[in-house]
Amino acid sequence: MNKNSSNTMALTPTTSNKRETVCIFGTGDFGRALGHKMIQSGYPVVYGSRSTQISNLIPKDAEVLSHAEAAQKAAVIIIAIQRQHYNFLTPLAEVLHGKVLVDISNNLKLNQYPESNAEYLAQLLPGSKVVKAFNTVSAWALQSGTLDASRQVFVCGDDVEAKQMVMDIVRALGLTPLDKGSLLAAQEIENYPLQLFPMWKFPMFLSLGLTAFFFVYCVVLDIIYTYIYENNNLSFFIAITIPNRVCPVMALILLALVYLPGIFAAIIQLYRGTKYRRFPDWLDRWMLCRKQLGLIALAFASLHVVFTLVSPLRAFVRWRTNRGIISQALNNETEPLDHTNAWLSDSYLALGILGYFLFVLLGITSLPSVSNNVNWREFRFVQSKLGYLALILCTAHTMVYGGRWFLNPSAYKWYLPDIYMLSLIIPCAVLVVKFVLVFPCVDKPLTRIRQGWERNPKYSE
Amino acid sequence: MNKNSSNTMALTPTTSNKRETVCIFGTGDFGRALGHKMIQSGYPVVYGSRSTQISNLIPKDAEVLSHAEAAQKAAVIIIAIQRQHYNFLTPLAEVLHGKVLVDISNNLKLNQYPESNAEYLAQLLPGSKVVKAFNTVSAWALQSGTLDASRQVFVCGDDVEAKQMVMDIVRALGLTPLDKGSLLAAQEIENYPLQLFPMWKFPMFLSLGLTAFFFVYCVVLDIIYTYIYENNNLSFFIAITIPNRVCPVMALILLALVYLPGIFAAIIQLYRGTKYRRFPDWLDRWMLCRKQLGLIALAFASLHVVFTLVSPLRAFVRWRTNRGIISQALNNETEPLDHTNAWLSDSYLALGILGYFLFVLLGITSLPSVSNNVNWREFRFVQSKLGYLALILCTAHTMVYGGRWFLNPSAYKWYLPDIYMLSLIIPCAVLVVKFVLVFPCVDKPLTRIRQGWERNPKYSE
Amino acid sequence: MNKNSSNTMALTPTTSNKRETVCIFGTGDFGRALGHKMIQSGYPVVYGSRSTQISNLIPKDAEVLSHAEAAQKAAVIIIAIQRQHYNFLTPLAEVLHGKVLVDISNNLKLNQYPESNAEYLAQLLPGSKVVKAFNTVSAWALQSGTLDASRQVFVCGDDVEAKQMVMDIVRALGLTPLDKGSLLAAQEIENYPLQLFPMWKFPMFLSLGLTAFFFVYCVVLDIIYTYIYENNNLSFFIAITIPNRVCPVMALILLALVYLPGIFAAIIQLYRGTKYRRFPDWLDRWMLCRKQLGLIALAFASLHVVFTLVSPLRAFVRWRTNRGIISQALNNETEPLDHTNAWLSDSYLALGILGYFLFVLLGITSLPSVSNNVNWREFRFVQSKLGYLALILCTAHTMVYGGRWFLNPSAYKWYLPDIYMLSLIIPCAVLVVKFVLVFPCVDKPLTRIRQGWERNPKYSE
Repeated sequence: MNKNSSNTMALTPTTSNKRETVCIFGTGDFGRALGHKMIQSGYPVVYGSRSTQISNLIPKDAEVLSHAEAAQKAAVIIIAIQRQHYNFLTPLAEVLHGKVLVDISNNLKLNQYPESNAEYLAQLLPGSKVVKAFNTVSAWALQSGTLDASRQVFVCGDDVEAKQMVMDIVRALGLTPLDKGSLLAAQEIENYPLQLFPMWKFPMFLSLGLTAFFFVYCVVLDIIYTYIYENNNLSFFIAITIPNRVCPVMALILLALVYLPGIFAAIIQLYRGTKYRRFPDWLDRWMLCRKQLGLIALAFASLHVVFTLVSPLRAFVRWRTNRGIISQALNNETEPLDHTNAWLSDSYLALGILGYFLFVLLGITSLPSVSNNVNWREFRFVQSKLGYLALILCTAHTMVYGGRWFLNPSAYKWYLPDIYMLSLIIPCAVLVVKFVLVFPCVDKPLTRIRQGWERNPKYSE
Repeated sequence: MNKNSSNTMALTPTTSNKRETVCIFGTGDFGRALGHKMIQSGYPVVYGSRSTQISNLIPKDAEVLSHAEAAQKAAVIIIAIQRQHYNFLTPLAEVLHGKVLVDISNNLKLNQYPESNAEYLAQLLPGSKVVKAFNTVSAWALQSGTLDASRQVFVCGDDVEAKQMVMDIVRALGLTPLDKGSLLAAQEIENYPLQLFPMWKFPMFLSLGLTAFFFVYCVVLDIIYTYIYENNNLSFFIAITIPNRVCPVMALILLALVYLPGIFAAIIQLYRGTKYRRFPDWLDRWMLCRKQLGLIALAFASLHVVFTLVSPLRAFVRWRTNRGIISQALNNETEPLDHTNAWLSDSYLALGILGYFLFVLLGITSLPSVSNNVNWREFRFVQSKLGYLALILCTAHTMVYGGRWFLNPSAYKWYLPDIYMLSLIIPCAVLVVKFVLVFPCVDKPLTRIRQGWERNPKYSE
Repeated sequence: MNKNSSNTMALTPTTSNKRETVCIFGTGDFGRALGHKMIQSGYPVVYGSRSTQISNLIPKDAEVLSHAEAAQKAAVIIIAIQRQHYNFLTPLAEVLHGKVLVDISNNLKLNQYPESNAEYLAQLLPGSKVVKAFNTVSAWALQSGTLDASRQVFVCGDDVEAKQMVMDIVRALGLTPLDKGSLLAAQEIENYPLQLFPMWKFPMFLSLGLTAFFFVYCVVLDIIYTYIYENNNLSFFIAITIPNRVCPVMALILLALVYLPGIFAAIIQLYRGTKYRRFPDWLDRWMLCRKQLGLIALAFASLHVVFTLVSPLRAFVRWRTNRGIISQALNNETEPLDHTNAWLSDSYLALGILGYFLFVLLGITSLPSVSNNVNWREFRFVQSKLGYLALILCTAHTMVYGGRWFLNPSAYKWYLPDIYMLSLIIPCAVLVVKFVLVFPCVDKPLTRIRQGWERNPKYSE
């Protein structure tokens, strides 16, 4: 609401006499888009260009002058040129002295150059005040007004006053400036728009790989085995039955993988007797992607829930149910209620529901706006205590579901276990080790190590 | 947590000797509420009033003086009077010179006056530093402490130091100041509290209208037709059966309407050969409410999911199922499994589940706190790639669901098609045109146009 | 994404020559963790310690000097010592004059000391500029890089420039500074990390107590009664049947408790004829935890939905359904469709679905990032209008569900009513009183009172 209204406002011509002239170097696409937007917001705009011949692409109300002339007209100069042409600015150093230069450039690859473009510009023109801004905004979005994702403009620079001037312009355009500190942050800001979910890459590939493996495993055991030995074509299992076997397995394994690195870390610290040595790299990276693993696990669990709830609507399930009822009716018999079965069925469903409920709670607290509103103690309580409780409930859910089949030889087609048995390995291992770790005789030294105590202070590096 | 604790803090009397006196002009409701809150937060408060006779409505610890006397006691003066009485301040110009005047006024209508109240005040008293603030806070909420929605206080003003002073007061009252820049933003800030979901109006009316149409259409075809020709009263279909027919149709149509304007925009740009001409107004407005359309579509889809999952619990469905089973049992027959049917049923359910899953992902990424944490490239990936995938899955879900009935004459009661056939028109059109647009021979020129290239630079305006 | 990338950035060694030296007093755990992180971010770090003997726990690249020597090397000094040792700083007053002292201390209990640690430090060293920061960050999280919950660093201080310097350091470490104003906010900031969901305590205990009561009530009536009088062991009802009876009851009661304090407040204001007297304390506290009550109600409602949807999968329910069908088949009869039953069943389900849908909407608008983006008018519309509509729908859902049993004596085992009848008491009372309150003859004076009017201005305190 707020955002959109601010955008609407910015489009209505405001009393332009209050705004100070802004100069834009470069008449490329982004320079023109920004100029358009600035004129709409009431800023007089002057373009600095090699050829001062007025191109009809440039906004009508803008002036086009030579670089030096244009620069003299404004206190803020937006450098809408590519980094490789920055050196042509060196001769203009005198004119640009004391001016605020806004570097809006982006690179094509992460860490393409040793220093950020903005720092490079600041080195070329040490007399100017360089501010990095606008690089996360897309020209297309700026022009079409659909700025949902890029309303935040990261701003950094060494001169506080210059930064303030740029942030005022950002606000006037209906965008939200975000001060990221000194020009040292420029590298990070320049890398930002080049990323495509960097933290999600490993968890995504891991879960896609595992899913593919389990899917094929299930196809072999459920469809091909049945086709060969029972000559029964159950290929339609691919649509729902097998996904609904793979999803819960993936959810449980990924949830356990969220807590496994914490277990490793505790063991390593106990073994080393200190917390002051870095973990191995793989563990560090694993710990940093736990949130993503957990969210993917939640996605699998949600799919499992919907796939399960939908089952009474499936033609196959209806047919199977009807067949059972009709055969009872034809045999003139009514089965009595099997109390053990009722207990197992109800408790496995209840465990699953409660586990999923806690899982969703964890998911909600990992929303940025929620996790910003809890303190460290509360976050740990939710993510650690409730998280382990969810893991316990989901593991119990799986065990109760398949418990009676462990000893049943018919569950081992081609001597291979069913996938829900495989899925229990990691969660059970995590829970057993965690159970050992909470014993006082193990927990106490661990707590002391985490508070900074060292077993062999002499031998630590 | 954080918010509430801060509120609690603010209520406990703090060492008041550190706070500077604040003056409030006007003893109306908001002036008194603000005064109360400020005294609670440790500020000495002085009221400026026409009659200095002490009213018992005014907080006990506050002083009441004449306007001029009160103004001299404080550096910050809150103007809690209505705009139409601002001109009585002109004689006080000398006393108010250099003071920080906080304009907290609101209007009754959007854009009621040519300039904002704060700008009007600044024109009347050019020697004072006018800051706009507090207008989005409700007096009632201020006093009762239930400030959930209005903890954010938008602040704007031309004098940075004055703004800082006001923002410090805002923080001391347990509220969150948000710097909106110079006094030019005052109009926007004044319009803000008058809005009631402005961006939702058109999507809401559109979907209400369409829903009503489809509802009546279904009532006619499903209830009235059956009543007339089969003399069967199915009026209870109004509660679940028909809503569950209308909801998916609405979800699919609205989802397609989210992507339709993008298609129009691409065609217009291809035809014009430039991106530098404004789209027609209707298209601009349509593009700006795509997020709202998508969220309403998600709401309809969610209702459809719950309505569908609930169906095994319905007395009617149970009766129908039982009747089928009993008639089979009585005829002493067991139907074999219909493999085609099992495939169709399972794949239509699986398509729907996956489509809905992607749809929910889109919904989550449109939460402000999530979309602020993704960059433009990531946002486009989710909203465009995953969005189209969701549209494809949902369209396929509908087609597989009703596929065999297209050629079945019994599906055309009174020669009218069923609504799910109507619902497929727009999505199929969108998908077909999008399919054409991604062909390289069309995609390449479009990409170049969007990067700023023009086919006929001479003839563009 | 953004956050994590910023963290990665901060870890890569940046051109350290630009950063100014930071001094840390105290070589305890947090001092060392902060030092490590600062060195990683390119800050030269000097430790001030009693024994200048170099401990191998201290980061390698850091210098260790006496307190006085270390303090002279830096403009910013981080005081990583406990409050009880602050007085040893008094002799250093001269060296610390004009320096920025960052108080990072935490207490063990809420409001342990009369004044905050930071204010105490400022009193001890009036010549220094004290800034409170970093106390919400955990040493463990700082070192391991898993900072999800504590990336926000609350900063407060009386000197704006000093605060700015500290906020720059915070940003350089990859954290987000949040300016909380003057040093008066230190107490609040120090209390913050000690809290564990303070606003949730009362609602949690209330709902746990009520849940336990209703659970036992149901166990007695459903399991023990059946066992005694019908000799039927239904103990497996504990897993799903009884939870699914308790959850909707709790959801409805808690939802009504959200709106009850508003009703009380209105009655109190009408009776007193003024809004300028404080509500009783219990009402104030109740009103402040309405959001939490509502969210717990939503959790119960969600559990109810899943428990209900899962019922066709339960062995007991299947057995009961099959028995019914088989007995019909054996008796060679087919029941006709009971239209009243179909109507009741469908409308009770539809009411529940719509009520839950509105309930979820309310939950979504209470997410911090969503409620920050709506204004007061919109928030009131959603929380009040839509909230009451949800309450009406849910109450109607319960009434239609159990309507025909009110007059049925078999519903009163041991002369006790079923819990859904108990659950209707508060919601019906709230709705009836609210219905009275919206009558113009009652609404008008109430609105006037809320706008500041008083019935007996003379007699008000």
